[in-house]
Amino acid sequence: MNESILGPFGLHIKQLRLKAGLSQEELAAKCGLDRTYISGIERGLRNVSIVNIFRIADALSLPPAKLLEFECESEHE
Amino acid sequence: MNESILGPFGLHIKQLRLKAGLSQEELAAKCGLDRTYISGIERGLRNVSIVNIFRIADALSLPPAKLLEFECESEHE
Repeated sequence: MNESILGPFGLHIKQLRLKAGLSQEELAAKCGLDRTYISGIERGLRNVSIVNIFRIADALSLPPAKLLEFECESEHE
Repeated sequence: MNESILGPFGLHIKQLRLKAGLSQEELAAKCGLDRTYISGIERGLRNVSIVNIFRIADALSLPPAKLLEFECESEHE
């Protein structure tokens, strides 16, 4: 596991963003982050910090823990 | 909120570690992290990444989301 969680996490964030009806630009603006950073998260390229997880959760009006509730195959390297 | 979550998060991790009956050294060894890093997290000095949140959750045998379930005063700056 470890780095292999970033892909599934990114897909999960993308799904939550789309469910909220937000574009990457809109989510980025609500978080005070750059659109390219949101894009990087969704593509599994960013090892997001807890502070930014809380920012994104706040922007999506979700409990932060919800952002960590996704399926990932823990046996991958 | 934001940086102000690091203190409450650190206390929460400390409580979960103690509940698991682990010392900082033992938790660090299970996570593959340094003891001073765990100490820094517990003192609210570390903006932990999602990869390390998953490592710590794995070492504590808890769902990662559980690590983000703690009270914090979101009105603090």
